[in-house]
Amino acid sequence: MFDDSTIVAIATANGIGSISIVRLSGASALDIASKISKKTQFQPRLATLSSLYSIEDELIDEALVLYFKAPFSFTGEDVVEFQCHGGVAIANMIVNEALKRGARLANPGEFSKRAFLNNKIDLSKAEAISKIIEARSEDAVKLLARQLKGELTSFVNDIREDLLFMLAYTEVSIDYAEDDLPTDIFEQIKSKMDKIIVKLSNTLDASKRREGMIEGFKVAIIGKPNVGKSSLLNKLLNYDRAIISDIAGTTRDTIEESVKIGTHIIKIVDTAGIRNASDVIEQIGIEKSIEAISEADIVIALFDNSKVCDSEDEKILELLNQNENKQIIKVINKSDLESMFDKSLLNEFIQLSTKEDINPLVKEIETILDSNTHSDEMTLISKRQVISVEDTLSHIEQSIMPLDSGELEFFAHHITEALENISNITRPYDNDQMLDVMFGEFCLGK
Amino acid sequence: MFDDSTIVAIATANGIGSISIVRLSGASALDIASKISKKTQFQPRLATLSSLYSIEDELIDEALVLYFKAPFSFTGEDVVEFQCHGGVAIANMIVNEALKRGARLANPGEFSKRAFLNNKIDLSKAEAISKIIEARSEDAVKLLARQLKGELTSFVNDIREDLLFMLAYTEVSIDYAEDDLPTDIFEQIKSKMDKIIVKLSNTLDASKRREGMIEGFKVAIIGKPNVGKSSLLNKLLNYDRAIISDIAGTTRDTIEESVKIGTHIIKIVDTAGIRNASDVIEQIGIEKSIEAISEADIVIALFDNSKVCDSEDEKILELLNQNENKQIIKVINKSDLESMFDKSLLNEFIQLSTKEDINPLVKEIETILDSNTHSDEMTLISKRQVISVEDTLSHIEQSIMPLDSGELEFFAHHITEALENISNITRPYDNDQMLDVMFGEFCLGK
Repeated sequence: MFDDSTIVAIATANGIGSISIVRLSGASALDIASKISKKTQFQPRLATLSSLYSIEDELIDEALVLYFKAPFSFTGEDVVEFQCHGGVAIANMIVNEALKRGARLANPGEFSKRAFLNNKIDLSKAEAISKIIEARSEDAVKLLARQLKGELTSFVNDIREDLLFMLAYTEVSIDYAEDDLPTDIFEQIKSKMDKIIVKLSNTLDASKRREGMIEGFKVAIIGKPNVGKSSLLNKLLNYDRAIISDIAGTTRDTIEESVKIGTHIIKIVDTAGIRNASDVIEQIGIEKSIEAISEADIVIALFDNSKVCDSEDEKILELLNQNENKQIIKVINKSDLESMFDKSLLNEFIQLSTKEDINPLVKEIETILDSNTHSDEMTLISKRQVISVEDTLSHIEQSIMPLDSGELEFFAHHITEALENISNITRPYDNDQMLDVMFGEFCLGK
Repeated sequence: MFDDSTIVAIATANGIGSISIVRLSGASALDIASKISKKTQFQPRLATLSSLYSIEDELIDEALVLYFKAPFSFTGEDVVEFQCHGGVAIANMIVNEALKRGARLANPGEFSKRAFLNNKIDLSKAEAISKIIEARSEDAVKLLARQLKGELTSFVNDIREDLLFMLAYTEVSIDYAEDDLPTDIFEQIKSKMDKIIVKLSNTLDASKRREGMIEGFKVAIIGKPNVGKSSLLNKLLNYDRAIISDIAGTTRDTIEESVKIGTHIIKIVDTAGIRNASDVIEQIGIEKSIEAISEADIVIALFDNSKVCDSEDEKILELLNQNENKQIIKVINKSDLESMFDKSLLNEFIQLSTKEDINPLVKEIETILDSNTHSDEMTLISKRQVISVEDTLSHIEQSIMPLDSGELEFFAHHITEALENISNITRPYDNDQMLDVMFGEFCLGK
């Protein structure tokens, strides 16, 4: 079913701004643009100032018109962009004029979907586009820009190439006599397999560690009742609030619990309905703490300087010991009150006073997040990508035994499965339903 | 004081969208763009896909770069636009990169101010730009698009030319003997004056009548207590609410009282704090009604079908008679209840029942507003323009007597004043302070 309709949508954010962009894509884009602008000649990529007219021949606006000739456009189709005066009314009118002249309103993600179907982008790039639009930190942008540029595409292609090499080997070894093959072919395959396994494992590890880069790193605050959890929570939520409030008006439910620290976004794990009842967090018991820790990237454990270490504190310490894989910050709170807590129970800790600000803690969070994020490791940016890599890895691991025992059909089966799974990241073999789901999550106009 | 700084701002609305535009203007715009994109060649007006880099050489985004070479740009200076991926984070990062490379953040309206100072637009066009961005109805857009295209500029220039002709006459008649002049020169001047006076008066009338096209037409609901004012108010406020809520998130305080009817925006006159206490409107007395009428473009007067016409109704009818210049809609409310009101007291009226919708009233409002707006009359769009035209008209009228009595110096004085006043609309002689005030009201990035 080839869709030859011409689609139209406003590509810029909704609201008051100086400029809005209305984008048309499809076989009739140029024709529709000619009718709206009464101009017949558009040199590709050359911005042309033009009057725009309604179908009743009334002047609507003076706009820059940009024509991108297929296939040299974002979608791979003929694309026309109207860069009109900003605000809500004009852009809507231009969209309406395009509709009256035969375009139809684009579905969410439909421009990107067409770009994919026309081989202008693969799925990894489409996902990067979708996420970069909603990115809230500089770190996220940089990570996504690399994927947009094709880092994951190359990563996938390299692995595909190695897997195809292995598959080719199994085919020739099935068809030919063993002594026609290079003598070191088995070692070559083993070496490639080892490298792929390391590469995929590292990528999964890094991706897990850096998961918070896009959506925000999850921080849990634990400690016994009245240790100062809600006070710390409020201080964190109010830290650098001005920057976060920039992005109010989006539809994220969790936005009010996000804070920017350095170049990172952190989210407070809302185990007990933090937002609705700010005292509830004080009452969080051990079970809730376990839950909070399991979801968190960083755990802040509070201890009260003015009280002796009691059984509840000991339980918290025990919990921390059980979760050494998490990034943990121990905090001695109320350090300006008379000291009763035996600090030798903690190895490393930060002290916060009731009066001063939380800068030492913020700095420590930032240091941890910097070390999590500031590297060039290959990072997956969606659950979909993670699952594909996990399945690829699993099949490669399952192929080792049949390879060693010479069961080449089994080996070939697993390598084929691995190939399909790794290909899913960029350009799946069979994809109709998946595409609809994925592109349907895009914002309108993309 | 020549300002040679290069300014930068996000030109698109703040929020989630597919595309954002960051705009640079000034002598260093191209240099800064070259550093961010690592490209040295930009062909003017040709959209070029380019990678953008931070000052630390990290990839930020893939963006379309558009270079407009001075003076062929919006500001008349070198301008570079980055059409980057949408959302808040990337555009902010590109702005920051421009700042790091020597640009400074633009003040509100500064791009337009530079366009004015570089003779790319006059003040009437600058005002149209400022208003079109905030326009909320198709009618407003069409009106402003005409001004943007130069309708008011031509109007002003025609009048200036006629006034200069008159001024030239006074100068030659002072310097030369009377018999060297064309014999019909006096009639020519009188005829031009009459035409200008009619033109300016018509423009002021039309502008007054169409004042609501941009900000919304003001509608007052009057009637005695319990006639059904707040119920009607609520029905009007909820009429077509979906469309109006599109523009939520702007900073207008009055937005919740605006409703779209046809291609128009109406605003309910909030004489008694309608928004805060919806029953208050029911209690509005005669004095408040007088106030409401004086502010309104359209007056809806309600009468209760189920009650006999009493002294309060009579006072309302008297008020309507005193305001025949207003556009008045008389409504017999509760028409489904037993009729007690003597309808012969009203000439024309609309009937609304307690059960049915308010479509007949909405249709009548639309008809009135259509007739107010659907014409090609020259319309002024700001208080500033109206005052300039009023003062121009006043001086021309004051010049008639001295012309008739041959006091040519007085005539010349008034024509000179008229010239200065009409010129204020597009390009004032002395303007520094006024410009700062006017452009300061623009949104950022324009």
